[in-house]
Amino acid sequence: MNDYIKQNERIDDLQCNGLKIIQKKDGFCFGIDAVLLSNFAQIPHNARVIDLGTGTGIIPILLAAKTKAAEIVGLEIQESFADMAQRSVKMNGIEDRVKILCGDIKDAATMFGKASFDFVVCNPPYMAANAGIINQNDSKAIARHEITCTLNDIIKTASDLLVDYGKMAIIHRPHRIVDLLYIMRCNSIEPKKLRMIYPFHSSNASMVLVESAKLEKSNLTVLPPLYISDNNGEYSKEIRDIYVWTGEE
Amino acid sequence: MNDYIKQNERIDDLQCNGLKIIQKKDGFCFGIDAVLLSNFAQIPHNARVIDLGTGTGIIPILLAAKTKAAEIVGLEIQESFADMAQRSVKMNGIEDRVKILCGDIKDAATMFGKASFDFVVCNPPYMAANAGIINQNDSKAIARHEITCTLNDIIKTASDLLVDYGKMAIIHRPHRIVDLLYIMRCNSIEPKKLRMIYPFHSSNASMVLVESAKLEKSNLTVLPPLYISDNNGEYSKEIRDIYVWTGEE
Repeated sequence: MNDYIKQNERIDDLQCNGLKIIQKKDGFCFGIDAVLLSNFAQIPHNARVIDLGTGTGIIPILLAAKTKAAEIVGLEIQESFADMAQRSVKMNGIEDRVKILCGDIKDAATMFGKASFDFVVCNPPYMAANAGIINQNDSKAIARHEITCTLNDIIKTASDLLVDYGKMAIIHRPHRIVDLLYIMRCNSIEPKKLRMIYPFHSSNASMVLVESAKLEKSNLTVLPPLYISDNNGEYSKEIRDIYVWTGEE
Repeated sequence: MNDYIKQNERIDDLQCNGLKIIQKKDGFCFGIDAVLLSNFAQIPHNARVIDLGTGTGIIPILLAAKTKAAEIVGLEIQESFADMAQRSVKMNGIEDRVKILCGDIKDAATMFGKASFDFVVCNPPYMAANAGIINQNDSKAIARHEITCTLNDIIKTASDLLVDYGKMAIIHRPHRIVDLLYIMRCNSIEPKKLRMIYPFHSSNASMVLVESAKLEKSNLTVLPPLYISDNNGEYSKEIRDIYVWTGEE
């Protein structure tokens, strides 16, 4: 067995610059949403970036390859995920730029200090804590439901962590768009770009990408729709381009 | 000259059930947005409907033909437009179901009473009052800029006018989406359906349709995109279907 992995873990090839990631065989694995968010986030050169609720560490690992960020911090509340993400970072040899820390998003402003990041990314739990039957101790449930923190906690923390005019990129489900935009404005992070993601041409949206900026004035741009599949049921050209992306700018 | 029209007015054929409308030769004329909003609004049978800022009266006239609403009120602050819209209603012989009244949106709850409508529609001025150089006395400017009322005035009035669980349908520009959704939630009209309108496939959105419901809980559905043009630069099939719509359900 590879030195980096523990029992019930496996190594997946990210098909991107030789990057690999450790995932649990029976735990929460990263999805297309993390890949779409990493592609959407326009990280400035030399930026200090934090990923709130990093899980497997997929977003910091992709951003390390894709961007010229100075430092990318991945914050994860679940000890076993933080430990696994840290081993993925070491396995990829990117520990000079990517730091994984175990901690609660609600404590992040205390841990790192206010106005300490240029960019916040987040692929949060999509479901409200009271939506559906959930096991409060299940690591998959923590990744999917707002058990350890709410959307409000995340946006408030992002606002605290960001420098003035610093940006946040987030992916969420359409049924929470009003919550998301409302909470952002209440926390002085103004939504500036929004992109709807549709499974195919005649379907309702399944996901939404939002970029917002701290203290910016109101003026939203809605980008062209992103389709997961084309009319033949195959991945769309844009999705294929994102997945075969080589990290070259 | 036709008995219904005054100097500098003309009669346009709506290509729909023989309906016609009077418009000013040199004034604000209705646009595709009013047609799209009339098509989007799902008016229940026997509903009492009000159009806030009715202008030429295009929306009440289309809704009278398209829906089984019991009564449709068009409220317009500009005397000359209210008078012209009233003549259009008479010319179409629909004055039993459509009433045009001259008045200020901000006074509507006093004029009609609270909780007096089942459905509110509005194709509001898109531009903030302070955006661009405008002539405060120009009738076109009043239709396009928030001179006589703000988005906040409109949504607050809609909330006052609606019965519990009554609905509102509005069309606006994407740059105001955050304002729109935020103000709706602040006034207890929760956005429930949203549809983005794009000029063509790879362009940013140019308009947005929103349906909200008074006192409803948070749960937004984002409908499939609506394209104005197809990839050949012609009107899309959906737009052509809307424009050749015959009023048959």
